[in-house]
Amino acid sequence: MLMDTATEEIGHVEMLATMVARLLETSPVEAEKTAENGGDGGIVGSVLGGGDTQSAIINAAMNPQHAIVTGGGAAPRDSLGNPWNAVYIVASGNLLADMRFNVTAESQGRLQVARLYNLTQDAGVRDMFSFLLARDTMHQNQWLAAIEELKDDGLEDIPVPSNFPQELEMSSVAYKFQNFSEGTESQEGRWAQGPSMDGKGEFEYVAEPEAMGPEIDELDPPVEPRLYSTPKQQIQPSSS
Amino acid sequence: MLMDTATEEIGHVEMLATMVARLLETSPVEAEKTAENGGDGGIVGSVLGGGDTQSAIINAAMNPQHAIVTGGGAAPRDSLGNPWNAVYIVASGNLLADMRFNVTAESQGRLQVARLYNLTQDAGVRDMFSFLLARDTMHQNQWLAAIEELKDDGLEDIPVPSNFPQELEMSSVAYKFQNFSEGTESQEGRWAQGPSMDGKGEFEYVAEPEAMGPEIDELDPPVEPRLYSTPKQQIQPSSS
Amino acid sequence: MLMDTATEEIGHVEMLATMVARLLETSPVEAEKTAENGGDGGIVGSVLGGGDTQSAIINAAMNPQHAIVTGGGAAPRDSLGNPWNAVYIVASGNLLADMRFNVTAESQGRLQVARLYNLTQDAGVRDMFSFLLARDTMHQNQWLAAIEELKDDGLEDIPVPSNFPQELEMSSVAYKFQNFSEGTESQEGRWAQGPSMDGKGEFEYVAEPEAMGPEIDELDPPVEPRLYSTPKQQIQPSSS
Amino acid sequence: MLMDTATEEIGHVEMLATMVARLLETSPVEAEKTAENGGDGGIVGSVLGGGDTQSAIINAAMNPQHAIVTGGGAAPRDSLGNPWNAVYIVASGNLLADMRFNVTAESQGRLQVARLYNLTQDAGVRDMFSFLLARDTMHQNQWLAAIEELKDDGLEDIPVPSNFPQELEMSSVAYKFQNFSEGTESQEGRWAQGPSMDGKGEFEYVAEPEAMGPEIDELDPPVEPRLYSTPKQQIQPSSS
Amino acid sequence: MLMDTATEEIGHVEMLATMVARLLETSPVEAEKTAENGGDGGIVGSVLGGGDTQSAIINAAMNPQHAIVTGGGAAPRDSLGNPWNAVYIVASGNLLADMRFNVTAESQGRLQVARLYNLTQDAGVRDMFSFLLARDTMHQNQWLAAIEELKDDGLEDIPVPSNFPQELEMSSVAYKFQNFSEGTESQEGRWAQGPSMDGKGEFEYVAEPEAMGPEIDELDPPVEPRLYSTPKQQIQPSSS
Amino acid sequence: MLMDTATEEIGHVEMLATMVARLLETSPVEAEKTAENGGDGGIVGSVLGGGDTQSAIINAAMNPQHAIVTGGGAAPRDSLGNPWNAVYIVASGNLLADMRFNVTAESQGRLQVARLYNLTQDAGVRDMFSFLLARDTMHQNQWLAAIEELKDDGLEDIPVPSNFPQELEMSSVAYKFQNFSEGTESQEGRWAQGPSMDGKGEFEYVAEPEAMGPEIDELDPPVEPRLYSTPKQQIQPSSS
Repeated sequence: MLMDTATEEIGHVEMLATMVARLLETSPVEAEKTAENGGDGGIVGSVLGGGDTQSAIINAAMNPQHAIVTGGGAAPRDSLGNPWNAVYIVASGNLLADMRFNVTAESQGRLQVARLYNLTQDAGVRDMFSFLLARDTMHQNQWLAAIEELKDDGLEDIPVPSNFPQELEMSSVAYKFQNFSEGTESQEGRWAQGPSMDGKGEFEYVAEPEAMGPEIDELDPPVEPRLYSTPKQQIQPSSS
Repeated sequence: MLMDTATEEIGHVEMLATMVARLLETSPVEAEKTAENGGDGGIVGSVLGGGDTQSAIINAAMNPQHAIVTGGGAAPRDSLGNPWNAVYIVASGNLLADMRFNVTAESQGRLQVARLYNLTQDAGVRDMFSFLLARDTMHQNQWLAAIEELKDDGLEDIPVPSNFPQELEMSSVAYKFQNFSEGTESQEGRWAQGPSMDGKGEFEYVAEPEAMGPEIDELDPPVEPRLYSTPKQQIQPSSS
Repeated sequence: MLMDTATEEIGHVEMLATMVARLLETSPVEAEKTAENGGDGGIVGSVLGGGDTQSAIINAAMNPQHAIVTGGGAAPRDSLGNPWNAVYIVASGNLLADMRFNVTAESQGRLQVARLYNLTQDAGVRDMFSFLLARDTMHQNQWLAAIEELKDDGLEDIPVPSNFPQELEMSSVAYKFQNFSEGTESQEGRWAQGPSMDGKGEFEYVAEPEAMGPEIDELDPPVEPRLYSTPKQQIQPSSS
Repeated sequence: MLMDTATEEIGHVEMLATMVARLLETSPVEAEKTAENGGDGGIVGSVLGGGDTQSAIINAAMNPQHAIVTGGGAAPRDSLGNPWNAVYIVASGNLLADMRFNVTAESQGRLQVARLYNLTQDAGVRDMFSFLLARDTMHQNQWLAAIEELKDDGLEDIPVPSNFPQELEMSSVAYKFQNFSEGTESQEGRWAQGPSMDGKGEFEYVAEPEAMGPEIDELDPPVEPRLYSTPKQQIQPSSS
Repeated sequence: MLMDTATEEIGHVEMLATMVARLLETSPVEAEKTAENGGDGGIVGSVLGGGDTQSAIINAAMNPQHAIVTGGGAAPRDSLGNPWNAVYIVASGNLLADMRFNVTAESQGRLQVARLYNLTQDAGVRDMFSFLLARDTMHQNQWLAAIEELKDDGLEDIPVPSNFPQELEMSSVAYKFQNFSEGTESQEGRWAQGPSMDGKGEFEYVAEPEAMGPEIDELDPPVEPRLYSTPKQQIQPSSS
Repeated sequence: MLMDTATEEIGHVEMLATMVARLLETSPVEAEKTAENGGDGGIVGSVLGGGDTQSAIINAAMNPQHAIVTGGGAAPRDSLGNPWNAVYIVASGNLLADMRFNVTAESQGRLQVARLYNLTQDAGVRDMFSFLLARDTMHQNQWLAAIEELKDDGLEDIPVPSNFPQELEMSSVAYKFQNFSEGTESQEGRWAQGPSMDGKGEFEYVAEPEAMGPEIDELDPPVEPRLYSTPKQQIQPSSS
């Protein structure tokens, strides 16, 4: 299933790259403007050929570095020029944790496509966005289904990671909502009462949480003089 | 509720900073080794004072840059020295998308604490991890509860964003699982049959997806000669 | 005092976030243009609703990625989209070194606000800048006062760190200005004569500095052949 | 003067590069260990030649990527491998702001060299650090002298930038210390009373600052539905 | 030779910085527009003084952060604001590898200048580009000459690094082109037949490469349960 | 051909990932040490299970963040934890420029594998390096062959880009080597005499280059006072 979706996503990248190239070539919207500038060869040609470079760049709303560095080819960068990087990959080995990330990524992704949809009136681009929105709908559903299956098969459960022995966590605070703001408005939510979502506890609301753990004396060890941080009282210069 | 949790998380950061400082001072485990090296003032003192710096650093498994730049204070960096940065924040304005991110973050976080738990035998550190594991249990439950509430209140739903008119997406592919790998193993999953998780469709399995959309001719416009990309046939040098 | 200022600075961030939101909503300056475009809902609405996206974006001088990723909310990024990160924090543990950094940061900050002041004619924005300029005036004064206090209390002094035994530094070059450029114009400055600013030496001008230290033979060890750097003479291929 | 110091700093970089190369070659401290491992050609040779790579790397406390990528040459990176980059340069055009940055940089720099001094017992390295400490002493004094000169010449003054007309800032808060923490401990400092450091005002302490500016209604514009952020009440899906 | 070229390149940086400053001051092209806006002091002045900031910024196609942070001085950043950094330096110690990098850098550089040439009609700027294009022509030739010399002197050769004993590489695949795509179009190239470029082998085309190496069983060790990755069958929670 | 090589390189990544996993599992070299520590489950198990975490980590020379974040899976990062990113991709559209980059990348890559070869005695790892070294030999040859073909087909030539009209560059400096260092040692090289490598000129040596271009007056425009950079003489504060 992972292989199927990975392959499909690579296909989406190709679709986007093709769309970018087509738009740079001769988008219906730009054709007229380009003609006015006596340009040929699409937006890039217009940018290159115009006597008035600045207005050409601005008409095309184009990042000039793109043409200069890539010659107009697709670049694996975001719209501010930040390169794609492996920090975007989340792969912890725990499938429930990672599937939840997938649901998240598809959510942000579909949201951004929906916003982009409203930024253009180009019918061809909207067609492609319409396709991508539908596939993101499927993918949100698919990862949620995979999560159900993981739970049904008894391999993972809430809370992630479910194979850590839950008796080793401090059970007294595992299902308490602690109020740390003025008022107790947060008392109203589903998170403050009723059975917990993992079915293993009961939500409880703590309006005024008390400090826990041993009383700790102020951190006030004798200053290590050879680090030359500022001491609380005058000391003699020293070195090791 | 957001304020409560934000405040609590700041408290966790303080707890971790205190833990780091205490460990650098005189952790029970390290005291003995330090003594052997004739050190005083905890691990840092041992590093500074030892005649054999390298073994001292290695005994302490310490990043020397930490002491040199911060003087031993807490630094908002990960264990490889990468600074905390605002890319870690996800705030799209769509609460279902963002709550899903919170569930994800709590999952990866609890998983990492569980792994760290096994990397130490120090009783005090394990106590604190035990507390953090319990709070991450609560937080996973809490964000899942908030997601339920958003849906119950009719403000958001699957697929995110639910306020985008779903009739504008290409409905023919909105609930189809497309097989793009050898074999049809992926047919077995919950994602390939039955009602979709959003309750708005029926999963369908496509064993051999067909290419969609209009046939697109090869991208082969006349090369824009003033970008000096390599042409397919010899051309005359030119400039605008 | 640190807590007071930290809290105030968080307040300033909130003020700026509010200002950004108000401007995106309906700034006086933009209202007219928006109306012309038949827009509603402020700048963002105009960007979304316009038939001519590019001119709408340009009229608003807006970064489109902002709306797509955050939905128009404040983002902890600079105007080029670079995320805030912890490299901006300097905390060495030596208070004189760190207070000097604070003076520097308030100086660059007030300078940038002053430049921004001239980039807008919006009366409300200028009011807020006027407030921020005054607070930066206070903060420059405040950190300079804190520096005086550190010195008066005998906790730190010039040169930082003053607790390093100064007799361990090479005193012969501790107060000499060395001329490394053509001419001796640099002789005129305060740094080339008179008592040093720390009151511990006398500035001296060296018009033609001589090379110091032991004569070092050219770095020319036998090449380590197993690193495959280029040797000075032909050698036999080898491996360990 | 800037040219003199820039040239000198380049010289310091060369000294450090030479030091690194010498240490990798045959430092007195390491020679013995290397011999035990049957190594030749210094630390790098030992790392390459040893039958037990891991212990060789650890003995040398060496970053293996350094040898693999650079062949042992100097690399403009910090000890965690982060490359030098132009963000480290601060040049605003306002000389008082920039000289203050120079004072800061020399302070952090001398502090770090002082800490490094205690991390080694190698006499040759300590000699070089002794030289660098002295030059940092000079440079701290020198930039402070330059700051005095800028003020004496009437070109810049506190607060930076002094050429911004100070009557345009909100004078009522330009010299007030505002208490935003519990208690009034911060009242004791030099920053809370007496003439301000710029000689243009009098410090004043505000124990309980009041909210300023116009009362602002909660930011609650009608939600722009085409951004698909979560609304406060149910709305109909829509698109432009 | 390296010193000559390094010095020349620093000169080019100075030329570019001067060009930028002159353009910001009063470029022939902009003078007229500036005048229309009632501006003085060049583009920056126009940006600062205009009643309509946005159009002024857009007319100048200027990054406003540049003026705010640097005051209009040159900044060692690319046109998207990314700082110069030491990752751009490649210095492996193997001169043939590094000279090849130099050829590459001069190629990309001359290509980008050629594209920039077409983006402006300013005669002065084109003059300077004409100079830089010629120097890049020289430099491409020069590094290619240096490569020839390295080979002629017998210090390096193809394949880099030539001092690694070539008999230690798996000679059976050292000169084979392996076809991993549909069809055998790649058979036509020079890389698929005839003597290899290093003169040490004969190119050979493998239309259907076979899997090599020992058959490796699926990676399926018993899962390490204390890492809490998802197991293949249900397991008992555990901890060390 | 590009597809063939891209596919092969993906295969190499898989080989490396498999190698890493196998080594973490039970490498012959480590097995003994692990046993001594009473460990099971390979290196990671030993790290988790040991009573003495630090020595376990050090014995394994392992980055602990790797296990904590990925659970031991392969991560697309370098050995210092820097993520793979798209800046590593160079694709300008000019094939000669890009093929030269490929030659460079294969050179640095083969050099690094050769150095790694000497860092291990593990026979299995050396076998794989032996395979990779041979393939890098092929790839260096292959890209050099592709460069020849580009030239033979008349599509590109030296200097890159050859389709820029060379008469537009300043021909007087296109083949001159300019001496900018002390002495004239650089006169000896191939780059200082004889026909240029592109066959279009004759190298010429300029021992004492003269300044070129128009005499430029010092950059000394009236200071733009609203940027608050430091002026040369006292000026009145001003604002727009």
